[in-house]
Amino acid sequence: MIPTITAFERSPDGGKGLARDTRVRWALEEVGQPYEVRLVSFAAMKQPAHLALQPFGQIPTYEEGDLVLFETGAIVFHIAERHTGLLPGDADARARALAWMFAAVNTVEPPILELSIAHVLEHDKPWNQERLPLVGERVRNRLEQLSAHLGDGEWLEGAFSAGDLMMVSVLDRLRSGILDEFPNLSAYVARGKARPAYKRAFAAQHALYAGKNR
Amino acid sequence: MIPTITAFERSPDGGKGLARDTRVRWALEEVGQPYEVRLVSFAAMKQPAHLALQPFGQIPTYEEGDLVLFETGAIVFHIAERHTGLLPGDADARARALAWMFAAVNTVEPPILELSIAHVLEHDKPWNQERLPLVGERVRNRLEQLSAHLGDGEWLEGAFSAGDLMMVSVLDRLRSGILDEFPNLSAYVARGKARPAYKRAFAAQHALYAGKNR
Repeated sequence: MIPTITAFERSPDGGKGLARDTRVRWALEEVGQPYEVRLVSFAAMKQPAHLALQPFGQIPTYEEGDLVLFETGAIVFHIAERHTGLLPGDADARARALAWMFAAVNTVEPPILELSIAHVLEHDKPWNQERLPLVGERVRNRLEQLSAHLGDGEWLEGAFSAGDLMMVSVLDRLRSGILDEFPNLSAYVARGKARPAYKRAFAAQHALYAGKNR
Repeated sequence: MIPTITAFERSPDGGKGLARDTRVRWALEEVGQPYEVRLVSFAAMKQPAHLALQPFGQIPTYEEGDLVLFETGAIVFHIAERHTGLLPGDADARARALAWMFAAVNTVEPPILELSIAHVLEHDKPWNQERLPLVGERVRNRLEQLSAHLGDGEWLEGAFSAGDLMMVSVLDRLRSGILDEFPNLSAYVARGKARPAYKRAFAAQHALYAGKNR
């Protein structure tokens, strides 16, 4: 059965790969699973039909027969559990991969998202220039710890896993000077984005939005 | 094999149950799994020995034989997978429970944490009083959506699961007027905290800190 995911009808980033459906597309490409995409307008995202699939009015969702999933972490883990290529075979190693998936969205992403919010939603506030460095320090703190763990390793736990897919996706949201301060993390993100599966996922979402008004 | 978790030597909340080891204790109590606790000082949390277990220098960690886990979501899921009581038997329903675990830490917790940061770390900033309502609105927005989904249901998906355990734990961090604006969510949190397993978990951590200097 071919799953259907949802994506923005008009993406806020104009197809730069920052919308969260890119993570799910990437996972599906890594395991070679074809999928269909249903586009959702901003208005439709807040309507009952979409809220029944995604209680928080966001994209992406994942529909496969009777199963409806939301949250990219849960969707990627579901894909990873049912195909080979995104999780190690050993049970303990799988639990570690899930730990990195949670670390990506629960420990590394929140300060990065806070920085985005400060840039996008609070940019016109008189105190924003004073507050931005504080938020930047919170991001830097997490990246220092992650950089120390990664060291000169290729991936977080040896072999590429769903944990790396999520962590690279989260770090990629930065696209700013802070990531450049950590050469091993910059290289890690570049390594993830150089994977053929990522490139196919990026191209698929980019084709939808390129050249369109946002 | 009895797992060992880590917890604060001196808890910032003085034992009010907000430290994240409470979630893990609760999960272990729900499934009837005994555990041991190793206390870690703030200084030790930033030392190599602890960073080898928890790359971000936090608690809790979970050690069981050769397995070392961090991130409460991953720890609770590991416990839930290996015992009965925290996940439904049906594969699709398990995937839904994991979606709620991710929603708790990735969608609901970030604005709640941002509100805590605004209260605790930025309380002396001149702009904090102006900014607090903005952050409060972000929390309120998420709670409105969650409240609409829960309706008059007892738990998020019918039967209590690890998704509820995580969501109740995250909402409990609020302990403020905002939660009171949503009676069904307040009742949901109270229902979770009334479970005997939660009460045992709370009592165990409270006994460590009550009456001690923080």
